[in-house]
Amino acid sequence: MIRNVVVGRVREGVPAEQVEAAIQALRDLTVEGVEFRLVGGQDRGLREGNAHFALTADFVSEEAYRIYDADPEHNRIRRELFAPIAASIDRIQFALPDGG
Amino acid sequence: MIRNVVVGRVREGVPAEQVEAAIQALRDLTVEGVEFRLVGGQDRGLREGNAHFALTADFVSEEAYRIYDADPEHNRIRRELFAPIAASIDRIQFALPDGG
Repeated sequence: MIRNVVVGRVREGVPAEQVEAAIQALRDLTVEGVEFRLVGGQDRGLREGNAHFALTADFVSEEAYRIYDADPEHNRIRRELFAPIAASIDRIQFALPDGG
Repeated sequence: MIRNVVVGRVREGVPAEQVEAAIQALRDLTVEGVEFRLVGGQDRGLREGNAHFALTADFVSEEAYRIYDADPEHNRIRRELFAPIAASIDRIQFALPDGG
């Protein structure tokens, strides 16, 4: 299994509701033929200097992740909802231990 | 529940084995009185420009996370194993949906 991790920082003045709407769009995203479990949210303010939002999504295989990554609706959400609010976005995919 | 997410990039020339050893030290970490599930790994190379390593750790409460965050052995691992290899580290904690 593969865990995709996205961590982002938002531009000055972006309201929390707008960040939440972008995250919710990904929570609601379905991709034909790909099962995945996505959770995400905004920083809880427990430490200084934290990033502002994060998403993690678990996939059964690298191939499943690639289909998700290339999905048109996923990329529309990236373009229209995340690109306008993000000052920076960092991504990584790593292997989960067997049994995820 | 709270998910702690850490995403990092390593300095030029740091061998993968050294990164793996640092991650393994956190996999092996136990913190008295705090149950948590930590998974982590190095980037699988599925996309250009990805970060190099990531960790996610799930806690039952913000308080549990705070104890983990302040734990002496955890901070030794940070100082001795991660600080020397990391060019950058970004962190965030967000709330998991009920039933995590």
